[in-house]
Amino acid sequence: MAILNHADTTTASGTSPAAAAVAPAMPSLLQPPLDADEFRRQGRLVVDFIANYYTRIDEYPVRPAVAPGFLARQLAETAPARPEPGDDALAAALRDVRDLILPRVTHWQSPRHFAHFAATASNVGALGEALAEGLNINPFTWAASPAATELEVVVTDWLGKALHLPEGLLFSGGGGGTLLGTSCEATLCTLVAARDRKLAEIGEERIGDLVVYCSDQTHFSFQKAARIAGIRRGDYREIPTSRESGFTLSPKALRAAVRADEAAGRVPLFLCATVGTTPTAAVDPLRELCAAVSGHGVRVHVDAAYAGAACVCPEFRHAIAGAEAVDSFSTNPHKWLLANMDCCALWVQRPEALTAALGTDHDVILEVPSSERDDGRVVVDYKDWQVALSRRFRALKLWLVLRCHGVEGLRGFVRAHVRMAAAFEAMLRADARFEVSVPRQFALVCFRLRSAAAAAAAVGGKRGRDRDDAEPNELNRRLLEAVNATGRAYMSSAVVGGIYVLRCAIGNSLAEEQHVREAWCVVQEQATVVLAAVGCTEERAVRSGSARYADDPAAVPPVQNEEVSLHSILSS
Amino acid sequence: MAILNHADTTTASGTSPAAAAVAPAMPSLLQPPLDADEFRRQGRLVVDFIANYYTRIDEYPVRPAVAPGFLARQLAETAPARPEPGDDALAAALRDVRDLILPRVTHWQSPRHFAHFAATASNVGALGEALAEGLNINPFTWAASPAATELEVVVTDWLGKALHLPEGLLFSGGGGGTLLGTSCEATLCTLVAARDRKLAEIGEERIGDLVVYCSDQTHFSFQKAARIAGIRRGDYREIPTSRESGFTLSPKALRAAVRADEAAGRVPLFLCATVGTTPTAAVDPLRELCAAVSGHGVRVHVDAAYAGAACVCPEFRHAIAGAEAVDSFSTNPHKWLLANMDCCALWVQRPEALTAALGTDHDVILEVPSSERDDGRVVVDYKDWQVALSRRFRALKLWLVLRCHGVEGLRGFVRAHVRMAAAFEAMLRADARFEVSVPRQFALVCFRLRSAAAAAAAVGGKRGRDRDDAEPNELNRRLLEAVNATGRAYMSSAVVGGIYVLRCAIGNSLAEEQHVREAWCVVQEQATVVLAAVGCTEERAVRSGSARYADDPAAVPPVQNEEVSLHSILSS
Repeated sequence: MAILNHADTTTASGTSPAAAAVAPAMPSLLQPPLDADEFRRQGRLVVDFIANYYTRIDEYPVRPAVAPGFLARQLAETAPARPEPGDDALAAALRDVRDLILPRVTHWQSPRHFAHFAATASNVGALGEALAEGLNINPFTWAASPAATELEVVVTDWLGKALHLPEGLLFSGGGGGTLLGTSCEATLCTLVAARDRKLAEIGEERIGDLVVYCSDQTHFSFQKAARIAGIRRGDYREIPTSRESGFTLSPKALRAAVRADEAAGRVPLFLCATVGTTPTAAVDPLRELCAAVSGHGVRVHVDAAYAGAACVCPEFRHAIAGAEAVDSFSTNPHKWLLANMDCCALWVQRPEALTAALGTDHDVILEVPSSERDDGRVVVDYKDWQVALSRRFRALKLWLVLRCHGVEGLRGFVRAHVRMAAAFEAMLRADARFEVSVPRQFALVCFRLRSAAAAAAAVGGKRGRDRDDAEPNELNRRLLEAVNATGRAYMSSAVVGGIYVLRCAIGNSLAEEQHVREAWCVVQEQATVVLAAVGCTEERAVRSGSARYADDPAAVPPVQNEEVSLHSILSS
Repeated sequence: MAILNHADTTTASGTSPAAAAVAPAMPSLLQPPLDADEFRRQGRLVVDFIANYYTRIDEYPVRPAVAPGFLARQLAETAPARPEPGDDALAAALRDVRDLILPRVTHWQSPRHFAHFAATASNVGALGEALAEGLNINPFTWAASPAATELEVVVTDWLGKALHLPEGLLFSGGGGGTLLGTSCEATLCTLVAARDRKLAEIGEERIGDLVVYCSDQTHFSFQKAARIAGIRRGDYREIPTSRESGFTLSPKALRAAVRADEAAGRVPLFLCATVGTTPTAAVDPLRELCAAVSGHGVRVHVDAAYAGAACVCPEFRHAIAGAEAVDSFSTNPHKWLLANMDCCALWVQRPEALTAALGTDHDVILEVPSSERDDGRVVVDYKDWQVALSRRFRALKLWLVLRCHGVEGLRGFVRAHVRMAAAFEAMLRADARFEVSVPRQFALVCFRLRSAAAAAAAVGGKRGRDRDDAEPNELNRRLLEAVNATGRAYMSSAVVGGIYVLRCAIGNSLAEEQHVREAWCVVQEQATVVLAAVGCTEERAVRSGSARYADDPAAVPPVQNEEVSLHSILSS
């Protein structure tokens, strides 16, 4: 084993230059890496770049039309040996971000982005992250950064109270919260905690007997978490839902599944219930589900990644009625609460279950001076609440968001989106070619074209006999592709109960009612094209009730679908 | 299941106000969440705040002296309903960051921070994250943000080439890289991939037969990863190392352990080798370890979280000699390559093994239009390379770091730190009270006071008879506590081979030789105090060879140990 004393260093080719020859002193670095004055100058460049981006974001096609591999062809094959000479390296790089990157990303902050769920951004969310990156501290234990750890304790209680969570999930009630990156981590950590408690009772050798439960609407990350945790692939019970029950998990079906497993000698372990499913934002009935598994030793986690945010409004609090009985609850403030990527808040009733599974006191370099533990106060070492050791100071941005917007500000934000979604739904209902496929939940609208025949009948048009008799699913797939190809709106899709639906998820920070109206115009226009392609004429199509939007040419501003050149986006 | 149509919303108390009453339009929000002009103004505030922090960082005690619970007592119990009236909410919050948070965090960017391993920051690393947060895109699939995905493909190849990694780990050689948050995730993902391949061969029911290997120096996060992946607690083989072999993993001992397990009917699965262990930066011999397990079906992952960065210098490339045979390799550019928290680069020889374990095509809302897959090009969907679905645009900051510093800049940075560590080592060796306990590796120095008696003899002093005859470990524990209590230097410790050592890890972006000299003065001074407390007088103690540092009063500037008031840190 070569010892890497300085004097012993050898090059890859085997020569052994004196160490001094390869070790220039700090001042000879090409660029001082951290420098206050330069940070001030470069920081302004970046702030202006971002501000200019927000100003011009609507000029980009929300989703770029590019073929895989485009970027590698435009960049060198290796990193440069030195910064470009004769220029400000950061300004040059920002020009490339403007010219090579921005025209080719999907613009999640575009007010025309209605796909997936929004990743809400805010000034203070982004700047809170920037501030945390500036401090660049690593609060993996209390001692590794006391104020950062304590702010996380405070802010998770603040958020939990703002969301009307049960007291038992908060530090103030004996539980507690933490900030992770994503819901997937939250699910994995709570599942592993539950698994280890169960195996401590029944023996590690019975890991193959454990069974976990969810619905066929549960986010696939739960399946991934179960696999990672060593749950056998066949022991992930995805209980079917139906359109009739709004795609919610049936407590009766859950109870039957748990009992069947018990009867077969298996060990029910964990339920992942969802408040706001990914396909349709369906809300599983927490109270009834907890009652269904009560006494069966099943831990219950609630994945409220999207819709948890809505609980900031009292009128949506009923979505988590019964949450007092759950073991853990997570939601993503980066989705709908203005905290930029990434931020998942997880609360647990029993922190000691998490730390028993994920904790360690093995490593003495992490020790907390004993005097600091002796006063009986709880010291939270967040490394024991998560997969990783290192962690960012996420509490800072969430604290800034809560400080600078206030709970009322967040309520107004959520309500505005719900109102816009209701408006979109109303437009859909006024056009007989469309149906709202699933009752709208929160700010997500799932819709589709009826069959070509039904659409033709609805608008009093006619269909040519020899035309492609596309199935409704195929018809709607074409519609989505056509809508997204315009670059003027970006939506996504889901297949629920065998039905292909388009999803219009409203939740962008920049979204205003005009963008919703414009998106509706795009959908209408493209529906006309798609229907015409299958022989459905449509004399009255866009006149069937929503003419007030489609007839206003001012409602659809010119949007470039080709690469935009934003000469002004970089002010340098 | 209540349907949350807008018109049906009910308050928590059961009343049913008309939806309009609770849904004000967007303009009535208290504060527009995303606003270009306001971003420009607020961004300058934050940039100046950070720049001022860097200017004044040396005035803070690097590690605060606080008792748990201090922050909650100073903050309200709930989030404010509205931003503070009559003031700029962000400026007010920044004042609280200055007054409540900064004096109470551990200052990881302080040039006096020598604990753990450094979390290196740079202007462009921080601003690259700020830029990514401003764009706030979520490149979980290629389609979800093509340029962000492709930049990650490009930049992981760039970095891999800069680190002289084997071609087989790069996209250009059939492998490929990704950017995760931490090494723990990298280990977990590669372990799960290995596990699932093995179980596909031998049957899922044999998960309890799997055995994983590492040394007693391996970071505890591997043990955590193994637990999470369902490896039984007893089947984590922590092979002992010794001081004689520099705390490296012995290929012979590994081979013996693997053979013993096989003989017992167990299934060897995975080896986590380390290049740069946490306690002492020891380097496991990759070539010999791979040879030792060859033919036994053991996948080899290299955790080079800290020392991987050194491979940017050809003279350190030998630390990963033999890496051609490993299955995967990870390092943390946030540790020593100027990429702010968090950033772990993971490369794998066979991406398909990762995606088989962690991938899914279950969710149609993630679909990539088929036309984009048809040209035979590989489309990377990074969600299938990691635990989580959502992910940040980490490639941007790493690309900016490589662009703006160049590979030569990174080499100069690493070499400067190694040189400073060598200087610290030389100072230690010149003071006979101390020993360098483990040969220095890279920029980490592990040292300790000799026993009180030995120290006294070394300096020609005498010891009182009735004094506390502290063991060397206890003596050094006291020394570390005394050093850290000064607030003028922060180091950490490790126990290796039964010996308690202090760790001085040099790697801060702001660290200069003067800080190393000052840290050495603090160590010397506190050693004198600690030795005096056990009756070791020390007339000649600080004069035994390093007087050139201790005798220069200008070398130790006045540092306030109490809370600093930085009235100028917020320029507003």
